[in-house]
Amino acid sequence: MDADTLALVHQLYGAQSHHIDEGRAHEWAETFTPDGEFCSPSYPAPVTGTAALTKFAEDFAGQDGVTRHVLTNLHVTPADDGLVVRAYLQIVRTLPDSPPELLRQTTITDHLVRHAGTWRIRHRTVRRDDLKENR
Amino acid sequence: MDADTLALVHQLYGAQSHHIDEGRAHEWAETFTPDGEFCSPSYPAPVTGTAALTKFAEDFAGQDGVTRHVLTNLHVTPADDGLVVRAYLQIVRTLPDSPPELLRQTTITDHLVRHAGTWRIRHRTVRRDDLKENR
Amino acid sequence: MDADTLALVHQLYGAQSHHIDEGRAHEWAETFTPDGEFCSPSYPAPVTGTAALTKFAEDFAGQDGVTRHVLTNLHVTPADDGLVVRAYLQIVRTLPDSPPELLRQTTITDHLVRHAGTWRIRHRTVRRDDLKENR
Repeated sequence: MDADTLALVHQLYGAQSHHIDEGRAHEWAETFTPDGEFCSPSYPAPVTGTAALTKFAEDFAGQDGVTRHVLTNLHVTPADDGLVVRAYLQIVRTLPDSPPELLRQTTITDHLVRHAGTWRIRHRTVRRDDLKENR
Repeated sequence: MDADTLALVHQLYGAQSHHIDEGRAHEWAETFTPDGEFCSPSYPAPVTGTAALTKFAEDFAGQDGVTRHVLTNLHVTPADDGLVVRAYLQIVRTLPDSPPELLRQTTITDHLVRHAGTWRIRHRTVRRDDLKENR
Repeated sequence: MDADTLALVHQLYGAQSHHIDEGRAHEWAETFTPDGEFCSPSYPAPVTGTAALTKFAEDFAGQDGVTRHVLTNLHVTPADDGLVVRAYLQIVRTLPDSPPELLRQTTITDHLVRHAGTWRIRHRTVRRDDLKENR
């Protein structure tokens, strides 16, 4: 993986959590391709396309307290049509005047493609460490 | 953001937490410009300039247990006079023979400028997720 | 530290935790040199060489629940014969239908050398924040 590509990918993931955690729902949705798909066992069905992803991020922002998506262990590998990115994503929630709680430990596997001159996520699969069927 | 600049910024932040956590107070202070300013709601007033920042880091080292500044979600954007860096910074404290505790989840927003041939922090604002007025 | 070297190192560490956490024991062992040494106060003696390191990673995979090695604060410095890498490494364990637990906060200090056209770990020292003698 060359340094320039890796820099772009690190920046994409650097931005993404801040977008959803700060309530910038549309900017978060735009880290996916227009037909991007988000598949997580925490939600009843995949979320597909910019409008649905935006709505998903808006709903997320309505939760109690402050929630952060803490991303670590980013690893990038080439794929036929783009890149595969794996990372750990923790959900940390803080209620007012309380210590932070580590709510969930997940692993994301993303397929990235070039779109509009940059890298975007075409498909994300989330695995949760607490769900046996999901490992 | 080009790969060379991003590499320098990742290295600056890679070093910074180790400096304060290992008691290298002066080295930590020197990740800021000589007139660098550190603004956090955890402390009564901003800390400004190398001498005050060094003293601040020395006081920090005197706390019970081992404290680590765990930095994630680094995102770098260009600004008129330098760079803006956002990241999550967790405070994790471990007392002897005890499991680590996640004490605090914060977001830092730094303004970086070139100084003495490298990037340094001119201004840091810390927001704490547990303080309503600080989000 | 140039951007190309830093990219290779970030990728090495990006891959390493996923290897051991997903049960790819041999791939994990191969992030070390053939004579690589792993020294941790959590184990009675250093683990040395590919076969022993593979066995070590296999044993690790047999633990209860899902365990993740969460790596942050990567910092790379040049050394006479290669690179020194320091990072924080958290052990996070999740039991079925339970929230994740932060079991351990450690600091790793690695010596890297070129081997077979890439960077590998020749020596790792793990320090645990909960052990007084180990800081």
